[in-house]
Formats: sequence, structure tokens, C-alpha cells
Amino acid sequence: MTDDRVVVALDVGGTGMKCAVVRPDGVVVRAERHPTDAARGPAAVVGTILDVAEGLADKARADGLTPIAVGIAVPGVVDEARGVAVWSANVGFRDVPVRDLAVARLGLPTALGHDVRVGGLAEARLGAGRGSGHVLFVAIGTGIAAAHVVDGTAAVGAHGAAGEIGHILVRPDGPRCGCGRPGCLEAIASAAAIGRRYAELAGPSADAAVTAAEVAERAATGEPLAGQVWQEAIDALADGLASGQALFDVATIVLGGGLAQAGDGLLTPLRAAMRERMTFHREPHLVAAALGDEAGCLGAALLALDAVGVRDHQEKR
Amino acid sequence: MTDDRVVVALDVGGTGMKCAVVRPDGVVVRAERHPTDAARGPAAVVGTILDVAEGLADKARADGLTPIAVGIAVPGVVDEARGVAVWSANVGFRDVPVRDLAVARLGLPTALGHDVRVGGLAEARLGAGRGSGHVLFVAIGTGIAAAHVVDGTAAVGAHGAAGEIGHILVRPDGPRCGCGRPGCLEAIASAAAIGRRYAELAGPSADAAVTAAEVAERAATGEPLAGQVWQEAIDALADGLASGQALFDVATIVLGGGLAQAGDGLLTPLRAAMRERMTFHREPHLVAAALGDEAGCLGAALLALDAVGVRDHQEKR
Repeated sequence: MTDDRVVVALDVGGTGMKCAVVRPDGVVVRAERHPTDAARGPAAVVGTILDVAEGLADKARADGLTPIAVGIAVPGVVDEARGVAVWSANVGFRDVPVRDLAVARLGLPTALGHDVRVGGLAEARLGAGRGSGHVLFVAIGTGIAAAHVVDGTAAVGAHGAAGEIGHILVRPDGPRCGCGRPGCLEAIASAAAIGRRYAELAGPSADAAVTAAEVAERAATGEPLAGQVWQEAIDALADGLASGQALFDVATIVLGGGLAQAGDGLLTPLRAAMRERMTFHREPHLVAAALGDEAGCLGAALLALDAVGVRDHQEKR
Repeated sequence: MTDDRVVVALDVGGTGMKCAVVRPDGVVVRAERHPTDAARGPAAVVGTILDVAEGLADKARADGLTPIAVGIAVPGVVDEARGVAVWSANVGFRDVPVRDLAVARLGLPTALGHDVRVGGLAEARLGAGRGSGHVLFVAIGTGIAAAHVVDGTAAVGAHGAAGEIGHILVRPDGPRCGCGRPGCLEAIASAAAIGRRYAELAGPSADAAVTAAEVAERAATGEPLAGQVWQEAIDALADGLASGQALFDVATIVLGGGLAQAGDGLLTPLRAAMRERMTFHREPHLVAAALGDEAGCLGAALLALDAVGVRDHQEKR
């Protein structure tokens, strides 16, 4: 049987939108990127989201395909049940009923999701966690957030706020987090925190801005200061992931986000540090994400497929 | 319609077994307690479990009732999918196929569950978390363990080890936990840890053994040392529960186990300490367990009812 069904998927970030037309088997048949230009305000951003989604649906129809649903991923606090973007610092959303606006404009069933949760969904079902029923996806970038995916469904929580692993306590006497509390994992091991810590220890005479990726590189070449900062981050991450494993008992932890691009420079010491911390726990497989920055868009597509009950097909490919 | 269906439920602990015949609406029609006498070895304990279960089924039939399933809760590591008691320090189980043994002996569908997880199931569906879709049940006694219950189902994990909130890190420079790692929540805030800490600070001249309940009482009467030890435990608990809330985003946290008997002496300061730690989080309702030491037995009954698909009835009462 030929299947001409497709979904329209958008992953809306603070700077850009990754957009695609996706088949039920997860294959992307068309991909586009558009600027978010959040400075225009939330109404303009929503206008662009709807224009882009409608445009992609029209192009799919022109290609002889049948759009059956729309999936949209946004950052911040997302009420997936009501389809409302509750709050987002990057994009400026405050209680925007994105789902209903899209349904009204496109006339297609629409699902709204959280960017990290749909990224985890995609990694668990199509990416590095594929075949593992219990996955924790951890995105490490400017912040740190996670998605707990069991049997292909991401936990949302009672208020759309589950998975905030960046805000579990790891160092009670550590630096203050952006959230206001001291010692959160994110305040020590996010890419932003690693850069800050290096600059702090290097002192005012050193390079003004060193990224986490550069700290990882310098650590690999044996620079003592970079080695210390990198190991502090590894230890904090291992503490945080071990606490997560105690609670979730997953089979696989998938690391994504910018910091995961350090590859073995991250994975090898982190696996060793995790192993030290596994006492009664079963040690999870610790792997790098496989879908790169496409995960959010693919996850938005999966959410759209789930919303219209098209799931078995895509799982079987 | 009269319903003569019942399930046989057993909650097997290190010292005793709480056993009951339970209707689909959660009403206990017969309750018994038997010693576990674990020193006899696991084979003898399993023999007692089967004898007691068969005896309760026979008594139910003599009362004109129809036993339709059996639920058995045990401590330790439990593989619920295979019905195997994998490991238990208290009862001495090592890979005991409890479910299959019960099916062979009683000829009834049987479900095996983990004591804290079924306790959480009962509190979430029949007890203090009733009506709340997202519940974290935390049992604080000699150790600390949790059950995350969403829509009436407790998370089991990939290997039957989910919910070990006692082993999340809260004090990196804290005392060593029984699991071998320093600073676990359980090493600071369990009833056993609170008693140890008091004895340590009181010094050799003081009473040899002060229980956590006594520390709570002395703190309430204004004894400075007890106040300090109690507050340390409250702060560690608040840190652990805040980390749990960041990950799970539940609507309700239900506190059970021996320490919860301190009532407002625990809940009032713990609510205040939690509130300080809620930044982006939605604050959960923090309540004491309602079912006391019957929770495990009722939870085993719910597991049995779930196994034979009798659930709506009990939810509707």
C-alpha cells in the first residue's frame, strides 16, 4: 500500500524554527528553516508559525501528499493537554493557545509539545534510544533539561513541568542558579556554567570568553585548569544522572544538546564517574544523541502522528 | 447487582505479613496477620505465604465469596513483569518465582508487587492522594523509598528498581549511606539516620538509643540539640523532595512510613522548607498518608484487581 499521508512539524526556538514535512515512518520529505525573530513580539511569532505551517501543508499537497496533522514544539512551560504555550523566556509566549490557533488556521488536528520532551520522544523512538523501552534524554546546553520516555511516551507532569533535571540539587555550597537556588546541576554543569567557571578561575588576565567546547578541547590537550573545570562538571553531571537513575531506573540515558558534541571527551569520563556511583542501581547505557538538532522537529512530527493515532506504522520501519 | 468477587492480598514484611480478603471497592472483609519468621529461610517463608493465601481463599469461599485473584507485595527488588522476587535483605529472597508458585498452588491469577510501590498505589487511589492524578508517595522509615503513581499506575522502571529517592544525593560531604555512597538522602533523613545523628551529637554520656520519634518530640518541647537534628533532617528532606518535584512535577506528595507519624511536627516545617525551594516549580500538596500500615495490603489487592481487569468498579466507589 502506498501511503501519501504526511504531517507538518515545527520546532520553534529562540532564534530559529526548524520545520519539516514528515512521513509516518519518520522520513523527512521536505525541510525548511525560518528565523523566529522573537524581538517582534509573540503575536508576530505566532503569525510566522501559522504562515510556515500553512505553507508547508500547501507544498505537501502540491507534491501529491495529504497532510493529516500538525505538530509544534516550543520551549518553556507547555500545557500539552490544553495546547497552550504557558510561558517562555526565549520566545516571549504567555498563555498563547497555539494549538487552537493552528486548528483554526489550517483545519488540521494539531498537537503542541515541549521542545526537550519531543526531542526525547524522537531520540527514544527513532534515535539513540531506539529499542530501549525506558529512556532518559538529557539535553545539556545553556541549561540542562530532561525527558523521561517510557514505551514511547514522554512524562509531562501534573502541570507540564516534568523533567527539570537541571534544577536538582548537587552542590549545596555551589554557585547560585538562574532559578534562584544554590547548587543546581545546571549552575555547575551546563555549557554556560562551564564557560563561566573557567573564566572565573582563569582570572581577569585570561581570554574573556571561553566556551564549554573549548574547555573540553583544552582539557583533552592536558591544560590543567581546563581539566579541573571539565572534571568538576563531569562529577556534577554524574551525581545528577545517578540521582535520576535512582528515581527512574531507565535502561538508556541519551545525552543531547551542545555539550554532547564533545563526544567521547564527555562520554568516557562520564561513564567512569557514573560507574563509581552505581551501588544498588542497574547501570544504564550512556550514549550520545543520534538525531542532532533535528530531534525536536522529528519529535513534533511524532506528537502529530500520535494525535491522529498513526503510530504502529512508524514504529515498524 | 451484588458482587461476590474478592481478591486475596498479602503484604510480606521482614517480621510480619498483613493479609486480607478485599472487595473490588477496596473494602476489607477479612484481615489476618501472621509472623514471617524469616530466619526459617526463604523456602519456609514462601510455604507460609502460599498456606496463608490458600487459607484466605478457602475462608472467602466458605463465606459465599468468589476469590478471583491474588496479590502479593514483597520488599527488595521485584521483577513485577515476571512475578519474581529478585532480591530482599529482610526476607532472604533470591530469584523466587513467587507468582508462578502461587498460581500453581491456588489456581488463581496472581500479581507480585513491590511493597512501597503498592503502598503508593493504594495511597494514590484509595488514600491521601485520591483524586490527584500525579502522586509521589514517599515512605520514610529505616530507609526512604518512593513510588511515582500517575493515573493510578506506579512506575516500575526498566529493572524493577524505580523510586529509590533515599539514594539521591543531597549532602556530598555528608555521612556515608548503607549503599556505600556519601550524602544520600536516606543517610541523613531516615528515621534510623535521625536517631544515629542525635546519639552522635549527644555524645557517649547521653541515652544510648533515642528514636527519631523521640527526637521529634524533644524538638517540639524546645530541646536545642533535638531541634538541630530535626531541622537538619527537614532540610535534607526538603532538598530531596524539591529535586523529586523538579523531575516528576506531581500534584501531591504523600508522606508515609514511621516518620510521618510525627504529623504536623514533620509536615509544618517541611512545607515551609519546601516552599523556600520552589522557584520555577509548581508547589505540590504535601500530606500525610491516610492508610497507615494497611497501605501495602490494600495495594496488593489493587494489583490483583488490575491483573484481572477489575478496576473501574473500585475507582467509582
